[in-house]
Amino acid sequence: MNWEKNVRTVVPYVPGEQPKDQNVIKLNTNECPYPPAPGVAAAAKEFHADCLRLYPDADSTLLTESLATYYQVNKEQVFVGVGSDDVLALAFLTFFHSKTPIFFPDVTYSFYDVWADLFRIPYEVKKLDNQYKIVVDDYLTENGGIIIANPNAPTGVLETVENIEKIVKENPDVVIIIDEAYVDFGGTSCLPLVEKYENLLIVQTFSKSRAMAGMRIGFAIGSKKIIKYLQDTKFSFNSYTMNATSLAIGVEAVKDETYFHEIVNKIISTRERTKRELAKLGFEFTDSMGNFIFATHSKFHAKDLFEACKINHIYVRYWNKPRIDNRLRISIGTDEEMNALIGFLKKYMMLEK
Amino acid sequence: MNWEKNVRTVVPYVPGEQPKDQNVIKLNTNECPYPPAPGVAAAAKEFHADCLRLYPDADSTLLTESLATYYQVNKEQVFVGVGSDDVLALAFLTFFHSKTPIFFPDVTYSFYDVWADLFRIPYEVKKLDNQYKIVVDDYLTENGGIIIANPNAPTGVLETVENIEKIVKENPDVVIIIDEAYVDFGGTSCLPLVEKYENLLIVQTFSKSRAMAGMRIGFAIGSKKIIKYLQDTKFSFNSYTMNATSLAIGVEAVKDETYFHEIVNKIISTRERTKRELAKLGFEFTDSMGNFIFATHSKFHAKDLFEACKINHIYVRYWNKPRIDNRLRISIGTDEEMNALIGFLKKYMMLEK
Repeated sequence: MNWEKNVRTVVPYVPGEQPKDQNVIKLNTNECPYPPAPGVAAAAKEFHADCLRLYPDADSTLLTESLATYYQVNKEQVFVGVGSDDVLALAFLTFFHSKTPIFFPDVTYSFYDVWADLFRIPYEVKKLDNQYKIVVDDYLTENGGIIIANPNAPTGVLETVENIEKIVKENPDVVIIIDEAYVDFGGTSCLPLVEKYENLLIVQTFSKSRAMAGMRIGFAIGSKKIIKYLQDTKFSFNSYTMNATSLAIGVEAVKDETYFHEIVNKIISTRERTKRELAKLGFEFTDSMGNFIFATHSKFHAKDLFEACKINHIYVRYWNKPRIDNRLRISIGTDEEMNALIGFLKKYMMLEK
Repeated sequence: MNWEKNVRTVVPYVPGEQPKDQNVIKLNTNECPYPPAPGVAAAAKEFHADCLRLYPDADSTLLTESLATYYQVNKEQVFVGVGSDDVLALAFLTFFHSKTPIFFPDVTYSFYDVWADLFRIPYEVKKLDNQYKIVVDDYLTENGGIIIANPNAPTGVLETVENIEKIVKENPDVVIIIDEAYVDFGGTSCLPLVEKYENLLIVQTFSKSRAMAGMRIGFAIGSKKIIKYLQDTKFSFNSYTMNATSLAIGVEAVKDETYFHEIVNKIISTRERTKRELAKLGFEFTDSMGNFIFATHSKFHAKDLFEACKINHIYVRYWNKPRIDNRLRISIGTDEEMNALIGFLKKYMMLEK
C-alpha cells in the first residue's frame, strides 16, 4: 500500500473560527453586521424548490448581466464564482502559469501562499514598509504575475490607484490581480483601469459590503480576453458552480443600491468612531479602509487581549505569525457590538494594569 | 503585451444545452423529471435570508452527518462539494499526482480528459469491448490512478462489484475513483469496499436520483485517510464551497428515504417500458442502468434523429465523437414525456422510410 506517494500534499488555509454559540459577539471574520438587502429575503421566499431538479444556468446570465450594468462594463467582462476565493483560486490556476515567481506582499491575505503551494506556483513575497505600505519598485522586476489586495488585509491599508497603475503599466507580460474584497468601505476601485490594461483582473465579493458571505458569491471584472481565459478554466473545472438559489438571490443584492450605500456608510461611521475609542485606550492602528481595524497596544500583548476577549464571548482575529503577532484584527460590527468590545477592553485594561 | 504566454490554456468541457424555452421536452442532461423531496421545498420556504450575512459552516457538518448516517459510515469518511463535478475535479487534483498515466475507458464521461488536461495529468484511455464493457486486464498494468464511471455514462453499462474489486485489489499503489452518479437507478454500489481498501474513493451526486441538479451537491465516501487528503485540498482551494441554502436544503433530501425510493422506482419503470417501445421501433441499446438510454438505429442516423427531435422541441443528447457518433443518449423523463418522444419517433420514421 503505497498510494500516498502519488497524492498532492498541501498545508490548507485555516479560516476564522465559526463558533456554534450564537451569543458570541463575532468580530473575527469581517462579516457584515447587517442583513442583506430586503429584496434578497423576498426572492428567497419566492424561490420555487421544484425548479431545483434542473441544472442552473451555467453562464449565470442574469447575475453577470446585473453586475455588468452596475459596474458599467460589457457582460463578457464579468466572471462570477463561489465567493471571491473560488474566483481567485481559478485565477491563480489560469494566470500564474509561468516558471518565474509571482509576487505579493509579505503581510496580506493568507490564502495567497496556500493557492501558490496548491498549484506549485513559485512565489516571492515582497516586504511591506513599516507603515505596511507596498514598495512599488519591488514589483517592477521580472515576475510571473502579481496579486495585491487593495485595501490590504489584514492591515486595511489602501494603495493609490496611481501606484497600482504604475505596477500594471510596467508589467505588460504578466497578469496583475487586484483583490478588492474590501474596496467598498472607503477605497477607490481600480476598475476603470481594466479598459486600458488587458492583463488586469479586479476581484470583488458579495461577502462583505453586500452582506452575503453565506451565499458564496464573488466576481471578477477585466478585459473580454482575460475573462474568456477564466471562463475556459471554470468550464474545465465545474460547469455549474453557482447554484440556482445563488443566481436568483444574488441579483437582488445588486439591484438595491440605496440599501447598499446605507449599510456601507453605517459600517464606515462605526469604524471611524471605533478608531477614536480605541485611540483613547492607547491602541495604535493603520488607517484601515476595510470593515475591520488592525490594532496593537504598547502595554498589552495582542495574544492576551485576544484570549481575554474570547473568554468573554467576544471573538476577534489573531495570527501567531512574524510581523503581525502583536496585532488584533477587529471586524466592525454594529454600534452596540463595538460598545460592548470597548467596554470590555476598558474594564480589562483597568484590572490588568 | 505578451501576458498570454503565461496563461494555462485549456479546451473546456461543453455541458448539455439548457434551452431558455420552457416548452421543450428536455431529455438531454439526465435531470430527474420529478421535483425534490417535499421537505426540500419546506426547508427552502423556512430559510432565513438574514443569516446569509454570516459565512456558512465550512465543514458542512449537518449535511456530512446526514450522509454518514444514511450510508452507515463515519462522518470523517464523507466529503461534500459543489456537485460531483467539484468533488471529481478536486479528487483529480489531489490523487492523480503521479507522472505515470492514469487510466479510464475510451467511452465515458467526457469531463475526465478535460480535468486531466486542465491539471496536466498524463492519461491513457482503455478501449471498451464491443459491448461497451471494460476489459479488466487493461487496468492491471502500471498506472498513476484509475477512474471508472459505474454505471458508465453515456452507455449506462454496469460493471460488477467483483470486476471493480479486482481492479482495486491489484492497484494498491494508486487511488481508484468510482464515479457512481447513476448507481441508484438499478446498479450495485461499491461502497462496502471502502472499508477494505483505503485507496478507493466512491463519488455520488444529488443531481440525478435526488432531483437537485440546481442545488449543486455531490459527495465522496472513502477511508478517513483518503477523505482527509481531499479535505486538505478543498481547504487549500476554497474554505466555503457549500452555501448556506445548499446545506439547509440538502439535508432534507437525504432524510426522505420513502420519496427517494418512490421516484427512483418510477424512473426505473419508465426506463424499462421505454426500452420495450424503442425496441419495437427497431432501436438497439445497451441494458442501461442509468436514468437514460444509449440507443442506435440501423436505418436512421443518430444525428438526423437528434436534429429532427430538436426541431420538434424534444432535446436529447448527441456527440459527434468516434465510436459513439451514431448513438443518442435519451434521458428518462416522465411517462408523458417518453410517450411524446416515442410518438414523434414513430411518425418521423414512418414519413422518412
